[in-house]
Amino acid sequence: MATKSYEHHFSSANLPFGIGSSAPTHEKPQAATRIDDSVIFLNDLAEDGLFSGIEGLPHGVFALDTLNEFAALPREVHQQVRRALQAALEDGGLSRFPDKSVESVSKVAMHMPVRVGDFSDFSCSLDHVQNAGRIATGKIGAPPAFAHHPIGYQGRASSIVVSGTPIPRPKGHFPTAGEVVFSPSTAVDYELEFAAVMGKPLPWGEQLSAAAAEDHIFGYVLLNDWSARDIQVFEMPPLGPFIGKNFGTTISPWVITPDALSPFKTSPPSPAQPTSKHLKVDPLSTYDIQTTAEIITEDTRTVTCTSKLAELHWTLPQAIAHLVSGGCGLRTGDIVATGTISGHQTGQYGCLLESTEGGRKPIVLKDGSARSYLKDGDTVEISAVAGGEDSGVGFGCCSGRLVGSKLTPPHACKVLLQAALEVAL
Amino acid sequence: MATKSYEHHFSSANLPFGIGSSAPTHEKPQAATRIDDSVIFLNDLAEDGLFSGIEGLPHGVFALDTLNEFAALPREVHQQVRRALQAALEDGGLSRFPDKSVESVSKVAMHMPVRVGDFSDFSCSLDHVQNAGRIATGKIGAPPAFAHHPIGYQGRASSIVVSGTPIPRPKGHFPTAGEVVFSPSTAVDYELEFAAVMGKPLPWGEQLSAAAAEDHIFGYVLLNDWSARDIQVFEMPPLGPFIGKNFGTTISPWVITPDALSPFKTSPPSPAQPTSKHLKVDPLSTYDIQTTAEIITEDTRTVTCTSKLAELHWTLPQAIAHLVSGGCGLRTGDIVATGTISGHQTGQYGCLLESTEGGRKPIVLKDGSARSYLKDGDTVEISAVAGGEDSGVGFGCCSGRLVGSKLTPPHACKVLLQAALEVAL
Repeated sequence: MATKSYEHHFSSANLPFGIGSSAPTHEKPQAATRIDDSVIFLNDLAEDGLFSGIEGLPHGVFALDTLNEFAALPREVHQQVRRALQAALEDGGLSRFPDKSVESVSKVAMHMPVRVGDFSDFSCSLDHVQNAGRIATGKIGAPPAFAHHPIGYQGRASSIVVSGTPIPRPKGHFPTAGEVVFSPSTAVDYELEFAAVMGKPLPWGEQLSAAAAEDHIFGYVLLNDWSARDIQVFEMPPLGPFIGKNFGTTISPWVITPDALSPFKTSPPSPAQPTSKHLKVDPLSTYDIQTTAEIITEDTRTVTCTSKLAELHWTLPQAIAHLVSGGCGLRTGDIVATGTISGHQTGQYGCLLESTEGGRKPIVLKDGSARSYLKDGDTVEISAVAGGEDSGVGFGCCSGRLVGSKLTPPHACKVLLQAALEVAL
Repeated sequence: MATKSYEHHFSSANLPFGIGSSAPTHEKPQAATRIDDSVIFLNDLAEDGLFSGIEGLPHGVFALDTLNEFAALPREVHQQVRRALQAALEDGGLSRFPDKSVESVSKVAMHMPVRVGDFSDFSCSLDHVQNAGRIATGKIGAPPAFAHHPIGYQGRASSIVVSGTPIPRPKGHFPTAGEVVFSPSTAVDYELEFAAVMGKPLPWGEQLSAAAAEDHIFGYVLLNDWSARDIQVFEMPPLGPFIGKNFGTTISPWVITPDALSPFKTSPPSPAQPTSKHLKVDPLSTYDIQTTAEIITEDTRTVTCTSKLAELHWTLPQAIAHLVSGGCGLRTGDIVATGTISGHQTGQYGCLLESTEGGRKPIVLKDGSARSYLKDGDTVEISAVAGGEDSGVGFGCCSGRLVGSKLTPPHACKVLLQAALEVAL
């Protein structure tokens, strides 16, 4: 199946930051931005003098193999780099840049944009917690704490990988046919998520308001929180998800800045009304961003979800303020994610657990095949645009192909998940 | 209250690794070992030629400010450094080392021994999961998955601190008097734990047997998993502990090697009988280590727990094998902890949740004061020895003082925890 280029996401109004490499000219991974279908290596521009007037931009920061050192700089430095790029582009387009700095996106390999510190994932969507709770436990309503703060858990940092990395089907323990087995998961799911990459650190013991949390966000990426539902449901009581999530998490390679997204600020339609001061936010506390998930097989692409960031009950700044409220601090490169972004009707569910009612009502792909959960060989591609497809500001994609064991009988998923639920709950 | 020196834990049979500094001779934190009440800076010994015959020991590795690069080296290199130190000590004791390399432990500040990758914490004690489950939910028995694998969760790496660092009382949400407040916790607890510091990394997607997991352990430390029970109980359903744990975790500064502990190998009295092959262990899969927790007030020390590592139902190698069973990999500096080490009777409970039955039956300290949970100013000191107090091999201590808000009425703890339980469960 042909890949999409997403070049219309990367107009000069976007100017994201990422880490790319391209043999033989840029063999070492280094900082880059993207215009349409071109990647521009920023250290070449720095050496050409484009950023020479910017105070506080360390020499060689764009030659490093992660964005951490750049992300930790004051927001004003990021903005000055952005303005220098935009001024050059207005002046003469890509021809204004040295030839050797510009490569076709098709020739560039993208790498992890940051060295991740801690990864915290949340459940910010009221629709998702209600749907997932009803499907997994039969109970209606959200967990007791959800009305007071976004609920989160600590994820694994070592297994966060960049878009394009194949994800092996994980093994784990789950019940089937009356016994608990250790076996490849038969219920591998995706979760469509949005995440903040932290820039300015926060010392251990300090706290933040949600409004102040925005100052600590370097930018945003898309995130697929791959989940093995059979393993996850069995292990969750009482300490939460672990092996069912820690086998792999995919992020998109381009970090989209708050400056690129600022024209798309909007209010949540039904904002959370927290009782605690530090979780209160300004009215324009989220972004008008439409998120999409597709399952791609050999022959077809099927859109399985379209949902909206702004419909989350809790915003990312609120999640960050809650995360640090006990005093744990933030490090540059920390990733804080929204959890599954779901709406409240068919076509808006951000994971298969919801779309298929826990595997009980398979969805049908465009090639006519059914999915309770993912099959080996399936690619899940998450994408997002701010405003609309013609805005010039999007996220490209966060893509990963499930690979691995062929042990799974295709009809077994719903039976197994049901068995797991009965044992666990 | 006078501090204990624990010098008898550090005979030449121990030879742990840590990161220390001492103005003005060793201002920059660097690698050290300890003999009795002396700290020996290893880079000085390296420059003096003590390790010159050791192939594969990089120049300057002991001058670095974490042990990660050393920990990642093959076990044989660690063993050769150990043998070189022991040979020198047999030859002439401390006088065999250059004067400038040796400092009194009282003049040395200890720092975090490693740059932590991911921190995973487990519930390996059957007594603890049964006690904590009964106290928190009223239900008898362990969670369904516990019989099949150790249950774990991902903790926060950024807030792991070295022994001696004061721990501020965290704030968080919990119910009290019919409403949910955001307030300093009134139920701060300690958890007496033991932890492995990982050395040799494991690539993403690979798996390990419990027997093979031992090869990846650089050494062991004590760990206090500080827990705010009111916050934790309210937030746990369904994603597990988060703010109630992430405010601070203390580890002991000296990493005790598997070579120092090998004479103390023993079998668990009632070993887990896993059905899955990768969790099977050799008979001598744990250590004869006695662990102790004390609460220290201004005037008195009160032993609140003595328990045994070997009584854990699951061993650390089993926890590590389970952690990576889905494919998440290991990085040098990852920390994997046992969870609370409790026995099955009074005096053997590794946290106040168990010792005080959830705050309902306060314990009495030697100064006559009662504790449901910790008061500001209380120091918790965890220590451990292998074999017995005369073995010459121990862990020193893992110590931290709770500091912070004075808001807590001393009698409120049990009322609040009960209210939290009623809302959450």
